[in-house]
Amino acid sequence: MDKTSRPLILIVNDDGYQAKGLSALVEAAKDFGEIVVVAPDSARSGMAHAITFDAPLRITPLKTEDNVSYYKTNGTPVDCVKLGQKVLLKDRKIDLILSGINHGSNSSVSLIYSGTMAAAIEGSIENYPSIGFSLVNYSPEADFSVATEYAKKIINKVLRNPFPDHISLNVNIPDVSSSQINGIKITRQTHAYWHEDLIENTDPFGRRYYWVTGHLVDNDCGKDSCEWALKNNYVSVQPVQFDLTAYKHFETLKKFEE
Amino acid sequence: MDKTSRPLILIVNDDGYQAKGLSALVEAAKDFGEIVVVAPDSARSGMAHAITFDAPLRITPLKTEDNVSYYKTNGTPVDCVKLGQKVLLKDRKIDLILSGINHGSNSSVSLIYSGTMAAAIEGSIENYPSIGFSLVNYSPEADFSVATEYAKKIINKVLRNPFPDHISLNVNIPDVSSSQINGIKITRQTHAYWHEDLIENTDPFGRRYYWVTGHLVDNDCGKDSCEWALKNNYVSVQPVQFDLTAYKHFETLKKFEE
Repeated sequence: MDKTSRPLILIVNDDGYQAKGLSALVEAAKDFGEIVVVAPDSARSGMAHAITFDAPLRITPLKTEDNVSYYKTNGTPVDCVKLGQKVLLKDRKIDLILSGINHGSNSSVSLIYSGTMAAAIEGSIENYPSIGFSLVNYSPEADFSVATEYAKKIINKVLRNPFPDHISLNVNIPDVSSSQINGIKITRQTHAYWHEDLIENTDPFGRRYYWVTGHLVDNDCGKDSCEWALKNNYVSVQPVQFDLTAYKHFETLKKFEE
Repeated sequence: MDKTSRPLILIVNDDGYQAKGLSALVEAAKDFGEIVVVAPDSARSGMAHAITFDAPLRITPLKTEDNVSYYKTNGTPVDCVKLGQKVLLKDRKIDLILSGINHGSNSSVSLIYSGTMAAAIEGSIENYPSIGFSLVNYSPEADFSVATEYAKKIINKVLRNPFPDHISLNVNIPDVSSSQINGIKITRQTHAYWHEDLIENTDPFGRRYYWVTGHLVDNDCGKDSCEWALKNNYVSVQPVQFDLTAYKHFETLKKFEE
């Protein structure tokens, strides 16, 4: 393939430009085309779909090597997608938007708090094929080799097959060795929630403060759910939409009309 | 009704504790029960479902008057819901969570960027009946009288009728006089997107920066859409879910399994 016909791939993340998971995703993608990386200048976990419109955004070029150009920004993960699309690549056709690889799971309801997945969803709004990748290991030093292997397989499939309009993929990879993985499974969002405990403490000045912590409460036994897949060592691939309308409750709510 | 049987209503917003829209929502709700207001200490627009887990959260009591207790926090709108549920009202049963009234529309795809609606969605995750209200006027000095009137009607309906499990309502109110409003309409999320322009400028030190701006591109002609309702002077009431699975694409994606 000559350079002009190679896919153009925008990569963003929410753990910041220095994260190991970002390098892992570049590693997975770089043989497929030309890569432009736009990453936050620091970790932006839990930012969800936050955007910056009350402050100026800046883009700092970092380096270009082996067909990969790196930039950092002071924006959120979603801002990184916008800056990539509308500034850095505004005159070019982006073929694929990738986000991650996140340090930690974005399965179940974590999806809606996730900056990684918000960036992928942002890509899907303007109909770019978009994938968010997450490894079920929160450590900054996590081993991404299996995640990289599966990211590569999934990127390959997305580039070689028609991709449904206006969706993104939420890919979660279990933290096990390659030989333990049972395959890839298409899943639905698990019906679960975070039960939060707000840990109370007192600062050196006698003022109370709270830290958000919690654990996932999963009462969903479905074998088609993302939590089931991950617990059973499958890579979970979930199609995600951004139409949040709860159509099935239209009839019940008709009584609100007047 | 004696005090113990009166509904307990948690009110949050994203424009901060001093916003006019927050007072308008308290005004709409205060005759229905006991109110606890937990609002960010400054405006947090565009925060979406962001949460704070890398910094301590603080709660500052402000005042209590006429059955309404006010608190401000250093958290996001979603943090305000968590702090209300898990700290301030942890031993009590919350009957209703209200968010807003937002200064500006949260119709169409704006829903996914909205801190106001993220707070309502957060309430619905643990199955509290939750409503986000937005007025289609971005001014800090907007006139909320019509919005207050319709918020009151909708709160009344929600308190007097069974509410579907795990959904929230996205209520958008057109910025017109009461006599111009044609009624309340149950709507679906409009298929539209924000076309962003990133305005480029140079700071006094010669460094480039960008501001996110844009306009909504609405190619959806459906008379059941929220944009249609608002353009035709209906109050738009939209049931919102937090399961983002794009079920209809399961079959297409089965080829990803291996």
